[in-house]
Amino acid sequence: MSVIDELAAEFARLPGIGRKTALRLTYYLLKRPAEDTRRLAHALSAVADRVRACSTCGNLTEADPCAICTSPRRDGSMVCVVEEASDIGAIERTGTFAGLYHVLGGRLSPLEGVGPDELRIGPLLARLETGPDVGEVIIATNPSVEGEATALYLQKLIRPLGRRVTRLARGMPVGGDLEYTDGVTIAEALAGRREIG
Amino acid sequence: MSVIDELAAEFARLPGIGRKTALRLTYYLLKRPAEDTRRLAHALSAVADRVRACSTCGNLTEADPCAICTSPRRDGSMVCVVEEASDIGAIERTGTFAGLYHVLGGRLSPLEGVGPDELRIGPLLARLETGPDVGEVIIATNPSVEGEATALYLQKLIRPLGRRVTRLARGMPVGGDLEYTDGVTIAEALAGRREIG
Repeated sequence: MSVIDELAAEFARLPGIGRKTALRLTYYLLKRPAEDTRRLAHALSAVADRVRACSTCGNLTEADPCAICTSPRRDGSMVCVVEEASDIGAIERTGTFAGLYHVLGGRLSPLEGVGPDELRIGPLLARLETGPDVGEVIIATNPSVEGEATALYLQKLIRPLGRRVTRLARGMPVGGDLEYTDGVTIAEALAGRREIG
Repeated sequence: MSVIDELAAEFARLPGIGRKTALRLTYYLLKRPAEDTRRLAHALSAVADRVRACSTCGNLTEADPCAICTSPRRDGSMVCVVEEASDIGAIERTGTFAGLYHVLGGRLSPLEGVGPDELRIGPLLARLETGPDVGEVIIATNPSVEGEATALYLQKLIRPLGRRVTRLARGMPVGGDLEYTDGVTIAEALAGRREIG
């Protein structure tokens, strides 16, 4: 297999990129200066080598703990629980939340074999035990069936610890995906968050 | 700018990939083992470092001259002229052409400032002068207005050299693009090629 075919095959492994699109991308790069291709290669290597999960919140970061966890300007009294690290960017772009985050790494899904032990729920409870100033946990799992079940599960664990547990308001389209929701809707959902149970 | 943002920005520079798709690809890779990301980076580096144009035909290749130009099993009496190196793959996949190729590097387009000097037309004529056994030149430029004009221009230059000049049959959809045409259509167009002028 030539290096051209190998590159097309690697592109075709990405989601939403079929064989023809992979070929098109490959030949696009072949027509551009080699420096452009090297820059993309370097960006990929940098991500592979330097990005890891923040040991505190699970956010993807180059420094551990991440810039949000170590920022003196963030409000440590609120922790927003999200399914994936990519959801943090969606909330940050609204500019309306100044608290901290906690990434679960997914949501409860018995059908896919994802139980509480597969998620970062233990570290979340540990954070609450060692962080008495966390007064509110905002559960921002996706408004899907699994996301709702995960929110309810977390609420039952966290409420006994004497913390306020809230959920993003139902301003978001049910069945949608947090990562792809527009900022205004996310901001409204944050502002209208409701106590669970 | 974090390396994550840099990678998303590099993805967004590719054709047909917008900001959201770039983010989606980036987070997809972040959720996969780092080895997957490194493999894509290596494939890109290999292409940037090792792929160049064949000095004979202009095909993209790791060895110069390319595997087609040096193959003893190819028929040197026919040269198929294409606009881009990516068109060679489209014809090769039909398995119905055993001759050689010549890549122009584009097509005549006065509106875009592409004249004869911008294309590899001189090297094509030089090949014909030093290769007396080339009996037929098949012009496989795209069936667009510019591709047809390029074919006519080449025909007027090559006919006086005493070679047969043919054009892919009009089995192909006019206004289409060779790279994305299905193999059966390309094969039929090859079989039904007609003499120009």
